[in-house]
Amino acid sequence: MKGEFLTRIPPVPRPSLAPIAATLPETVPFVGPEAIARRSGVPLRARIGANESPFGPAPSVLAAMTSAARESWHYGDPENHDLREAIAAHLDISAANVMPGEGVDAILGMAVRLFAAPGSTIVTSLGGYPTFNYHIAGYGAQMHTVPYIGDREDIDALARAARETQAAMVYLANPDNPMGSWWDAASIERFIAAVPDTTMIVLDEAYGEFAPAGTIPAFDAGCSNLLRMRTFSKAYGLAGARVGYVLGDAANISAFNRIRNHFGISNVAQAAAIAALADGAHLESSLAAVRASLEDTAAIASRHGLTPLPTATNFLAIDCGRDGAYAQAILDGLAQRGVFVRKPVVAGLNRCIRVSAGTAADRALFDQALGEVLAELG
Amino acid sequence: MKGEFLTRIPPVPRPSLAPIAATLPETVPFVGPEAIARRSGVPLRARIGANESPFGPAPSVLAAMTSAARESWHYGDPENHDLREAIAAHLDISAANVMPGEGVDAILGMAVRLFAAPGSTIVTSLGGYPTFNYHIAGYGAQMHTVPYIGDREDIDALARAARETQAAMVYLANPDNPMGSWWDAASIERFIAAVPDTTMIVLDEAYGEFAPAGTIPAFDAGCSNLLRMRTFSKAYGLAGARVGYVLGDAANISAFNRIRNHFGISNVAQAAAIAALADGAHLESSLAAVRASLEDTAAIASRHGLTPLPTATNFLAIDCGRDGAYAQAILDGLAQRGVFVRKPVVAGLNRCIRVSAGTAADRALFDQALGEVLAELG
Repeated sequence: MKGEFLTRIPPVPRPSLAPIAATLPETVPFVGPEAIARRSGVPLRARIGANESPFGPAPSVLAAMTSAARESWHYGDPENHDLREAIAAHLDISAANVMPGEGVDAILGMAVRLFAAPGSTIVTSLGGYPTFNYHIAGYGAQMHTVPYIGDREDIDALARAARETQAAMVYLANPDNPMGSWWDAASIERFIAAVPDTTMIVLDEAYGEFAPAGTIPAFDAGCSNLLRMRTFSKAYGLAGARVGYVLGDAANISAFNRIRNHFGISNVAQAAAIAALADGAHLESSLAAVRASLEDTAAIASRHGLTPLPTATNFLAIDCGRDGAYAQAILDGLAQRGVFVRKPVVAGLNRCIRVSAGTAADRALFDQALGEVLAELG
Repeated sequence: MKGEFLTRIPPVPRPSLAPIAATLPETVPFVGPEAIARRSGVPLRARIGANESPFGPAPSVLAAMTSAARESWHYGDPENHDLREAIAAHLDISAANVMPGEGVDAILGMAVRLFAAPGSTIVTSLGGYPTFNYHIAGYGAQMHTVPYIGDREDIDALARAARETQAAMVYLANPDNPMGSWWDAASIERFIAAVPDTTMIVLDEAYGEFAPAGTIPAFDAGCSNLLRMRTFSKAYGLAGARVGYVLGDAANISAFNRIRNHFGISNVAQAAAIAALADGAHLESSLAAVRASLEDTAAIASRHGLTPLPTATNFLAIDCGRDGAYAQAILDGLAQRGVFVRKPVVAGLNRCIRVSAGTAADRALFDQALGEVLAELG
């Protein structure tokens, strides 16, 4: 064997990764539909898997973005002053309780970095938002999970786990992703009261605009262990622009100034978000379009013998009626036909696929592809 | 005294900041000109303080941004595939050696998080890039500084300090900000060779496009302790779009997948950067405009009895000939006239003000304001 005679070259010394980074996998929390298409060779025909909005942004927002693009030669305002004021005015709260950021994903990472020491415990639901889990691992905290109950996040068990583990943080999405389920505002307030004062609650309200009245609690500027996440990615149709914000008590909001990426929100995104807040008519029409789209999607699912679950979001969890492998086979069959959909992965929830509100063309493709896939699977 | 009779209310318990975050000040590494104008009430007339480019982006880039804005309803490609390939093709290297990110500021933060454990030492120049220092503190590392020598970063002393402190990282900007000075490629290669293999070198080449031939070393995919930062903010005129990239060996580049904000670069920014790389003619014309602008700015400074320093960037350090207080008074006088300029703060360097390449209108305002301020100061 040639190998015997090769000289062993000692490895060249190189910089080490920091201890936490060294433990982390290289990962993408969500593989994008572009990557799926590149790898499978199947062109993307219906993009209804990432809870985006094909009904936005508004023409008024596009005009603001086009105008702001011409200002791209200079940095945006690192204080995001005008955007911050616009959000505060929209919600009728103080700007001191608002911090914009370059998308909720980035804000979630900053929140973990601020409030969870390495080794501390963070409570979340088993099957909850993967990007939050990515940040838990990324900053060296320990994840403690609580199962869903009846396709909802189990708020009593989450609060209990926060107490029992003396958690640094606890995460709850209301309405929930990936199941589309929700709790009413009174239940959320009961949850907040049941969590220890020393545990920071991350209440992710990314889908709040889609929820029925009575779902979103009133803002309480005096609650010192609550951060509420909001985004322009969903109802405002600006997923690709990267802008969201966090609401909280003034001291917690101000703490983001210790670590945030001050120039992180582009000029175009700042202008887009301000214009989006000003165009209430477009928001209303988008919400109506989402409702109509999901009603039609539910009808399609029912016609094919599947069971749509109730939803307070811009997507529909559809119970495929058998196990996770069966739902995965449906997902794979849809993907082979260029219909991009996602699904929960955790046992119990994984009997479902998750379909975002799409256009009439998206739904027609979904209808046809679903019929073909179900016929194939028998 | 009334105070005697007030009941002491015990503080309500609240979540603690993580230990590193608790040590950090609330800060903005650079107060933006918008904030300066809001606080002073003086409208911004000449924006020549942040090394932006009034000559960009190209019309072709604006067209790409306008088109991409319409795609803002969906998330951008989290792998930034097309942009990554475009950068690699532009540089004639492998995409495995390239990682785009949402601006160099964000990439610098990720680099520190990846390669510097809390408590480890990072070497940089006293008076070097403040945002890098912000990340050093932000991730709990210790900053070790080395003074400039002859208005340049002292590459021999930086390498020596990296050896003596067994530094996790060492930072060097070439060309340098804020002085505009530079080393030739051979000196940089000597510096790289003198730094220990276990110290990660951050070579910030944000101003590389402006430098004379022979300044930027050839890319070496085998160098395992070097990360090179590049940006679309300066020569490409896209500061407000938030997009930069890092070059390095494949393992180091891939490590960014452990912690990066995968959806961080907006659709508009990805499209803008791709279009910018394709428009070489605009880049050339911008570089020529910057050169002409700085020649004129240097002449203005000289006419007023100040000394422009040599520059390999899109800005000019101007030696005001006295101490830091005098240069600060000039800066303040310019600010009172709506002329936004910055200056180094460290002793020795702080005799200078730093003026970015501006338009003819910017320069006329600078000329007039400078004359008034110098007359006032006597």
